[in-house]
Formats: sequence, C-alpha cells, structure tokens
Amino acid sequence: MKAELISIGDEILIGQIVNTNAVFLSKALNKIGVEIAQISSISDQKENIISALDEARKRADFIIMTGGLGPTKDDVTKHTLCEYFDDQLVKNERVLEHIENIFRKYVTTPISEMNRDQANLPSKATLLHNAYGTAAGMWFSDRGQVFVSLPGVPYEMEALMRNEVLPKIQQEFVLPALYHKTILTYGLGESAIAERIEAWENQLPHPIKLAYLPSLGRVRLRLSTKGQALEKLKEQVNEQIEKVIPLIEDIYFGTEEDQSIEFLIASRLKKMGKTLSCAESCTGGAIATRFTAHAGASEFFCGSAVTYATESKTDLLGVEKSLIEKHGVVSGPVAAAMALGAQKKYQSDYALATTGNAGPTKGDQGQEVGIVFIGLATPDGVESFEFMMGNNRTRVIQKTVNQALETLYRVLLKAPV
Amino acid sequence: MKAELISIGDEILIGQIVNTNAVFLSKALNKIGVEIAQISSISDQKENIISALDEARKRADFIIMTGGLGPTKDDVTKHTLCEYFDDQLVKNERVLEHIENIFRKYVTTPISEMNRDQANLPSKATLLHNAYGTAAGMWFSDRGQVFVSLPGVPYEMEALMRNEVLPKIQQEFVLPALYHKTILTYGLGESAIAERIEAWENQLPHPIKLAYLPSLGRVRLRLSTKGQALEKLKEQVNEQIEKVIPLIEDIYFGTEEDQSIEFLIASRLKKMGKTLSCAESCTGGAIATRFTAHAGASEFFCGSAVTYATESKTDLLGVEKSLIEKHGVVSGPVAAAMALGAQKKYQSDYALATTGNAGPTKGDQGQEVGIVFIGLATPDGVESFEFMMGNNRTRVIQKTVNQALETLYRVLLKAPV
Repeated sequence: MKAELISIGDEILIGQIVNTNAVFLSKALNKIGVEIAQISSISDQKENIISALDEARKRADFIIMTGGLGPTKDDVTKHTLCEYFDDQLVKNERVLEHIENIFRKYVTTPISEMNRDQANLPSKATLLHNAYGTAAGMWFSDRGQVFVSLPGVPYEMEALMRNEVLPKIQQEFVLPALYHKTILTYGLGESAIAERIEAWENQLPHPIKLAYLPSLGRVRLRLSTKGQALEKLKEQVNEQIEKVIPLIEDIYFGTEEDQSIEFLIASRLKKMGKTLSCAESCTGGAIATRFTAHAGASEFFCGSAVTYATESKTDLLGVEKSLIEKHGVVSGPVAAAMALGAQKKYQSDYALATTGNAGPTKGDQGQEVGIVFIGLATPDGVESFEFMMGNNRTRVIQKTVNQALETLYRVLLKAPV
Repeated sequence: MKAELISIGDEILIGQIVNTNAVFLSKALNKIGVEIAQISSISDQKENIISALDEARKRADFIIMTGGLGPTKDDVTKHTLCEYFDDQLVKNERVLEHIENIFRKYVTTPISEMNRDQANLPSKATLLHNAYGTAAGMWFSDRGQVFVSLPGVPYEMEALMRNEVLPKIQQEFVLPALYHKTILTYGLGESAIAERIEAWENQLPHPIKLAYLPSLGRVRLRLSTKGQALEKLKEQVNEQIEKVIPLIEDIYFGTEEDQSIEFLIASRLKKMGKTLSCAESCTGGAIATRFTAHAGASEFFCGSAVTYATESKTDLLGVEKSLIEKHGVVSGPVAAAMALGAQKKYQSDYALATTGNAGPTKGDQGQEVGIVFIGLATPDGVESFEFMMGNNRTRVIQKTVNQALETLYRVLLKAPV
C-alpha cells in the first residue's frame, strides 16, 4: 500500500514554515507498513488542489491532505473536496456541539457564524473527531482509494492520526511490515566507505536496500526492507549488519532505529544511574535543548550553563581569569575548566563543555572562524579535544553539537553499566 | 515566472530528515520574484524522477532538483537526467581538477574512481561550480524551460544558489517583485479576528492577498502581493497595514518581514545598548538557542543558566532554598528569583526566566502538566506571569519560548531607546 501526502497552504511555498507535518506523517505511516510515494506542498487554490489529487491517485492508494480547514476565507479545502467528490455540505450536529463546547470552555470571545460553519461537512465524508480543535478530520472512500483531510495545526493533526486515522488504516487494510535500521559512522567519506564495503553491498539480498546519508562530518548507512513479519525482517537486517561491522570497525559507533544519539545517551546514563551537565559557549544552549526536548530528561540531566560572555565563564563556572588570559577563551584548557566547573556546580557525574568561534568574524582574541574545543569531564578526570568545523555559522553550531554528543557517547560506551 | 522544487531521496519520504532545503530555496527564490508553484519530495528511482519532471514542466518554467548527486550507487539523478534529455556523460576537466584538489587538501583517504566519476557530466548541461563539494551543479535549457540539479547537502546547495543559480536567473529573466509582510497578533482566535476585520479584508485591492496563520497561541496575518516595483508594493501593503491596526490595537504587537521575534529583540537591545541573560528550566536552553543561532548575539546576549535540577537553581542562580520549599519550584516567586539571579550572575540589564512542568506527568510537588511561570527582570524591577500551555510536551516548550520572547519584546517596546 502506497500513500501520498499533500500539504495545502502558501506558507510552505514562500518558505515561511518548515513542513514538519510531513516528517510526523511519514514516520507514523512507515511504522505501520505504509510506504510514502510522494510528498507535495501546494498553494491553497481550488484548481491546484484538484490537479494534485488527480496526480496523487495515479501513484497512491491512500492520500492524506493537511491544511486549509480553518474558518477563514483563505481556507478552501472543504469546498474543493465537495466539488471533487460531487458532494454537498450538511450540518453535523455532533461536530457543532463539540465546537460550541470548545468555545464555552476555552475561548473568551463569543462563538460566531464562521465558527459554526466549521460543523458543515461533505455528506460523503466519514467524520474523524478532532479532540483539540474545531476543524474536523474527514475520510473519503472513492473508487477503491482513500482520501483523508486533516487540519494543518501540528498537534491537532498528530492527535487525529494517532486516535483516528492510524487505527482505521490498520483495521481496513492488510499491511506489510517496513523496517529501517541505520549504522552510524564517523571519520570517513561516503565514497571511501562505499569502496570498502562494495562486496558486501553487492551481496545484499532483495529487498534490502542500502542508502548513504552523509551529514556534517559523519556518514550514516541506512538499510531498508519490507516483508510480512517484522521480527523476520529485523533478523535479516541485523544479520547483514553483523557482516559489515568488521569492515568498518574503526569508524563504526553504533546503530539507531528510530533513536537519535541524545536518546542513546539518555538510555545509557539512566542505565548507569549517572548524571550529566553542560557548559555551552559556542553551542549556545543547543545541546541542552536536544536533551530536554525528550520527556524524562530530569532523570539524568542537571542543566547547562550557557556562558556566552567571557566573564560569565568565571562568574558561573569558576573558570580562572588567569587561565583565560593565558590560553584565550577558545582553547583546550578553558574547555576543560568549563567542563570541570559544570561538573562541580551541577554536582553531576559527567559534564560536556563547548567553546569555539562560530563566526562569521574572527574572535576578540583572533581565533579563527570554525575552531572549536570540546571538554569532557568524567568521574575519572577531564579531557579536551580540538576541531575545525568550517566557516558557516549554522553548520559550526550543528557540527559541534553532533561532535560533542558523539564524543560523550563513545566514552559512555566504554564505561561500566 | 513560476518555479517548482523537487527533492530527491528516500530519507524525506521515511521521515528521517526535515526538508529544510525547501525552506531555503523558497525564501531565496521569492526574494528575487520567483513564485513557487509546488514542492515535491520523491524517492530516488529513475521512473519517479522522470514522471516528476514531466508533471513539473506542466506547471513551472523553472525546475530545481536537489539530491541524488553523490558518488554512490543509490544516487541516480545524473544518469536519469542524461536519459531525460537524451544526452551522454562527458568528462569535465575543470571539475576533475576541482575534485582532485579537494582530495589533496581536505581528505585523508586516497581519491577513487567513484570520486573521479563525479567529474563526468551530461554534455548539454551548463556547469554550476560547487565550491564546497565534489558534486557539480547543472543547468539545462530545454524547450524554453530551465532545469537545475543541485546536491542535497544543505551548505553546498546554499552556496550554489547564492553564487551561481540566483545571479544566472536574474541575468536571464525579467522578474516581477514579490512582497510579503506579516502582522503579529496575540490573544484572539482567527475567526474572532476575521470578524473584526471583515470590512477591511473585503476592500483589499487586487493582487494583495491575506492569509491567517494560527500557531501556538498567536495568529499572524500575512499580506502578500506582486508587481513591478518593490518600493511601490511595500507602500501599498503598508497603507493597508496602517488601516487595519486601529481595528486590532489591543492584540497587535508588531510586524515582521523576514524577521523572527528574536531578531526584533536583538535589534532593539543593540539599539538600546542593553544586555540580556536567561535562566531556563522548562525551556531547557531553547531560548538561548534561538538567540545564539544568529551572528552578533554576543553583542547583547550574555548567556543562559539552564537549571533543570532543582538544586542547580540554588547553586547557580542563588535562589533561596526556603523560597522553593515555600512556593514550589514551579511558581511565580521562583520564576522571579531565577530572573533576578540570572540578571546578577550575568551582570545583564534584562533577564528572562522560565519554570514549568512540560510533562508528560505531574511534577514532584504535584504541579499540573502545562503550568508555566515566566519571570522578567528589568532595570526597574521584576515581574512574573503565569500561563497554562496544554499537555503536549513539545508544544509546552515551544509555546513557552514564544510567550517568553513576546513578553520581553512588549516590555522592550515601551523602554526608551
């Protein structure tokens, strides 16, 4: 079964927002065995929606649209679907009651006709209940294909998927299993890896597919497959991974399924019963943000001292002024002192520190753009590492975050659990 | 002139990465007057690429593909374009020299045939020089339409756009001006706003278009238009904005062109010659990350104490233990004390603090999920504000960041410059 995603709304086409809905939908559908044939973003004009639906139904059995269901004039999805399915709007009493209820409970302004009109739905649509908003979801079956229309507001869409759409797909269709697993490598380019593993790649049994994903200094190798039984697929993929590891031992540092590296670190620290803090200069809080985005962070994460100003490294972390004067604020000794300062202040077992010049211009003390030091304090001592991260600010910050997390994870893997 | 963007690669279709390339491309093209007709993400299979190109050329004059130009087997874009344009690969000596140069300078492994093959390009393509990588950009003219193929690695693609593609488009085509400006409102739902401004909306002159963008507690109103002279368009849009402000005075707090609220705050603080620090608990560094993502942050931003663990609020910020015991760690007095602590430790003029329970479960002291306090210390004193942010963790964090930035910005707007 193949699905196609259509995001409706000019905000994506002018670059005003990132299409994160597509990420959620792709992941959620893949997990239950639905492959995505194409993702399209189109403007909210009737004729564009209709031609996108016509094209999508050539490729996919299942089409999910998001967006264009608001109460205001710029939202045209519902009327367009009426025209597309030769249908008309009828008032849905259950939805009307739900909308009135939301207004009574949560909204200070009185309900308007515009809001009540959101309860008028195409007669051929099966209602998908939107617990968190006034725009109902809709499910159409037409000539053996399914069309679903969901609001574009991410948390409303996500709840509708979880509570209504995914269970209904699993109930109505027999789905294959899809499985992806990704090998993490660091330190070698994609073509050098490809040469090393060529013989292994050529013997991969159908339908296992390999993809190279180079990104910010690392290359991830993704194995994808599909079949009937998930456990069998996992076995087949793991068998291939066991074969390839000896070929890339020096650059291999783990695998991830759905897991990000901060998730792997979190699991490891929780298992070890150890805690972590950070001292961030050039990463400006980005490491802490990665950890605290996940529930349960307080079990191992104490916090991070974002010390952007030089004085704050002394005032908050106790880094000696003389050390900064001697080595410069962007230096190995300062990275190490920041890590020790965080470890002490937060009373954590491990502490990760970053100091560098993310650019775009040379630092006060003439530090080159892109030079970064990472400090890591462990229960056994402290180390610092030097890196050159290039000259693009966003990239320097992201590469430093990745490098810091990877440095920590490697050390944790060697520590006893 | 209309453009269409095609991202090639399975990683977007399985939700492994967010399509940020599309955001960069849409913004960059809009700025020079190129409208985006559609954005599509497709898998890296020859037949999908060909059918996407066929469909795109029905809608657009200018088609930009990203991705699928790596040296490994899973990358098929170049061979597919050869087939599509009935062309063949020829060795490009300039590109070969560039690839060899990159290997000599930056890569420790020896160059391979796979790498050298990247210098073989379709004979009909005009070369677009990729300064930062081995995958060359390509520009094809075919039956009055332009097809551009760029690598998917964001910083390589961005540099190619800036240095090669955008100048070439501006040189070869006469482009209209496009202009967008967004009104920021806070505190009223989209349908309530729509009712208030209905008469104004109905009188908007062609081709000015209005869109409502509701997001995490605020509604943004975007005005878009196009024409010949950018200055004239700006005047027309500003005229309409002057008309609508009196109707929404109580919920209006500014406009943005390309600017995010952290950019507005940064400009304001720099103009005032004042500094800012943060004390973040539930936002976990996300506020600091927003500020430090932009160059020049060190001119006004001192840092942020991410104090996730309760003890760290005392150890780093000097919040009295007795205050925490009396009011609870998620409380107005603690938010205020955190702000004062950051203001003092970082020696900043302003300090912004957050403490709350982002969920998914009740806090140690029984705090409800979603309850958040924001503290703001200014040169004149300190205040705290209470909010209920719902029960979705990601949303609570994001809403709190937005709310904190907006709280600060409102106060800054009232302060003398």
